[in-house]
Amino acid sequence: MERIRTVEVKAHIGERVRVAGWLHSWRQLGGINFLVIRDGRGLIQAVAESASEVAPLVEGQVGVESVIAVEGTAMSEAQAPGGVELHELRIEVITPVTEPPPVPLNKRRITASIGTVLDHASVTNRHPARRAVLRLAAGIMAAFRNTLTARGFTEIQSPKIVASATESGASVFKLDYFGRPAYLAQSPQFYKQIMVGVFERVFEVGPVFRAEPHDTTRHINEYVSLDAEFGFIENHFTVMALLRDVVAGIISSLSEYYSAELELLHVQMPAVPEEIPYVHFADAQELIYKLHGVDVRGEPDLSPQDERWLGEWAQREYGSEFLYVTGYPMRKRPFYTYPDPQRPEYSNSFDLLFRGSEMVTGGQRLHRYEDYLAALGKAHLPLEPFACYLEAFRYGMPPEGGFAIGLERWLMQLTGAANVKLVTLFPRDLNRLVP
Amino acid sequence: MERIRTVEVKAHIGERVRVAGWLHSWRQLGGINFLVIRDGRGLIQAVAESASEVAPLVEGQVGVESVIAVEGTAMSEAQAPGGVELHELRIEVITPVTEPPPVPLNKRRITASIGTVLDHASVTNRHPARRAVLRLAAGIMAAFRNTLTARGFTEIQSPKIVASATESGASVFKLDYFGRPAYLAQSPQFYKQIMVGVFERVFEVGPVFRAEPHDTTRHINEYVSLDAEFGFIENHFTVMALLRDVVAGIISSLSEYYSAELELLHVQMPAVPEEIPYVHFADAQELIYKLHGVDVRGEPDLSPQDERWLGEWAQREYGSEFLYVTGYPMRKRPFYTYPDPQRPEYSNSFDLLFRGSEMVTGGQRLHRYEDYLAALGKAHLPLEPFACYLEAFRYGMPPEGGFAIGLERWLMQLTGAANVKLVTLFPRDLNRLVP
Repeated sequence: MERIRTVEVKAHIGERVRVAGWLHSWRQLGGINFLVIRDGRGLIQAVAESASEVAPLVEGQVGVESVIAVEGTAMSEAQAPGGVELHELRIEVITPVTEPPPVPLNKRRITASIGTVLDHASVTNRHPARRAVLRLAAGIMAAFRNTLTARGFTEIQSPKIVASATESGASVFKLDYFGRPAYLAQSPQFYKQIMVGVFERVFEVGPVFRAEPHDTTRHINEYVSLDAEFGFIENHFTVMALLRDVVAGIISSLSEYYSAELELLHVQMPAVPEEIPYVHFADAQELIYKLHGVDVRGEPDLSPQDERWLGEWAQREYGSEFLYVTGYPMRKRPFYTYPDPQRPEYSNSFDLLFRGSEMVTGGQRLHRYEDYLAALGKAHLPLEPFACYLEAFRYGMPPEGGFAIGLERWLMQLTGAANVKLVTLFPRDLNRLVP
Repeated sequence: MERIRTVEVKAHIGERVRVAGWLHSWRQLGGINFLVIRDGRGLIQAVAESASEVAPLVEGQVGVESVIAVEGTAMSEAQAPGGVELHELRIEVITPVTEPPPVPLNKRRITASIGTVLDHASVTNRHPARRAVLRLAAGIMAAFRNTLTARGFTEIQSPKIVASATESGASVFKLDYFGRPAYLAQSPQFYKQIMVGVFERVFEVGPVFRAEPHDTTRHINEYVSLDAEFGFIENHFTVMALLRDVVAGIISSLSEYYSAELELLHVQMPAVPEEIPYVHFADAQELIYKLHGVDVRGEPDLSPQDERWLGEWAQREYGSEFLYVTGYPMRKRPFYTYPDPQRPEYSNSFDLLFRGSEMVTGGQRLHRYEDYLAALGKAHLPLEPFACYLEAFRYGMPPEGGFAIGLERWLMQLTGAANVKLVTLFPRDLNRLVP
């Protein structure tokens, strides 16, 4: 008999079906054995009313996480997870496991400490709540790509080993490249800009590396960056309009295809306004002063508290969980940032705040070769390490801009996770290199 | 007037349209100016019959690769590329370029040496033939993902910084991880296997790193690997059947969505048989002896010449450009390879040859914890570096297998490129770290 998925069983009420997966839990109640089988997507309950049905488990002395196949009759049962369960079982043990896993996987919540959860990620990733988060990560990546592909963007995969890594001042990992020093790319920024000269519209989904020695709930040293960059823009507002569509595409795609995961995780999905409200950086600081009496005017950046206040304000003022802050001061933005033509101390850049926390950074970039020479000179940076990058601008680039979404951090905000490491497949931090 | 793409112009014959892009070429013939404008996808010819039309170019002294917008009347013209051209032009210079690019981009073929082409990849990637190849790379990645997603696979992004990199014996790059040694992942092998325990069916598209000091036309030190892995297989033939569908999905998707690129590059697309023929490794060696009189029996691997001979044989015998070679000797395969239960010196593994050259490696893996302990012992490998990997098998894994496709190498074979570096966005080799 051909195996079906657990999520398909409810379409076969009254029929004999075969499922296969891991023995998720096994309880006995008054002589009846309740098994739950977990496969790659879901769970199904199987009820053995006679001892002979579970004999293959008992005789093999196998326990939870054993891989088994179960043939049974599908029956409606309102009490069972998914409203269906299997009866009159024929059980086959595929891979026996006799030892309980280091962390119980069949409790509604994992109760182990975060360190234990991460140490045993090879197994704890199997927990239904944890894998639901990891499925959402896949959903976000797919929706990001689909939204941009539909808008004429071409995917690129830029090199991760680079000769110098100086684009944003973040710390970089150094490696030995056949006896020469090299670095891990802290972002695909330069490459995606260069490729605007080729395809006009490009995106990349890939790992980026930050050697920042921060040990916080919001930092990991390797993460997945969702990058987009495109030419023939008017200014940063063109970029913000695209980003709005990308965010809306992700939200609607998750709602459509990942409802089981969202439900399991109790995710409150945000509404994405047709136009996301925006406030200029300087006005945001004035607003904070006016509303909270805290004078942050003149500060070069927003603090986490500032962002929370602005998030609350956007919620009150516009009923929006999203808010653009535009025009960050030039002195805090990287050299390739395009200045505001009217107020050159501010920039044509933006952050997108989601629920009072930065989710995306983006903006318009310089596109004229002379402007790059001037900007590097002003920043006292040498030209030589940037020669190949500058060549793209030397030979014609349209006005362009883009943005980068940190996958894990957004997933953390969306699911309300307490730590970004808990929404990462196998996180890397100051102390963690395995698994 | 809203800008349209060059590829859309032929739908607007008789109308005024506006295009924007790079001044790809500019010729004068008997007082008439022939411009070609290149945008992110295509080319369009624009014909100026009066000097005043090109005045903005002449006055600005601008040349090829300048970014311009051109308004004109679309007219049918069989001689013009794409059968359409623009007349009665109004030209606007967006970003002037006065200096010719380091390598001419408007010749049918790039005539510069490969070194020069790669040194100036920031600009040479703009050449229509070169960017067509890079578009195909995007098409392959998308089709790979779509085919697997449709079959219930979940995408993962595994870490690229790892504590040890011992899975296949390939050389690895070493890096400094906050004062500790770490390595760049040579493949996502261990992680994708671990994740079979979570999602059953997973895939990954991402960079892999090989510190092999080979300076050949077929080697690069960072490439994109298309990885798939899945559980509940019968044996390696289950994996081969999936791979056949993936290859067919890629070929049909390229034919459907990338016909312009395939035509430009004169790619002969292969037919993918319903069942790809296969030959056992031992039989393949016998065949080579019989057909070519060269006795390679007992050799642990196939040479490139052997692969070419087998490719020719499959073409003659089955009319197939694809051939599976199964059952490679265990001693040449990594420790996690599943042995042939009947002939344990051979393995349940395979290579897929395409046009007489290896394109994909895959097979069934060990899935029982005890088998791993025995295999590591036999290979004289310590357990400790594999502890997290082994944990996934300790707590239940179904029979599983998978494969990995090297994106660039396949693209090289498909397009008939002379060097894998020419089908790579920004290649990394022994001497090349920029751009």
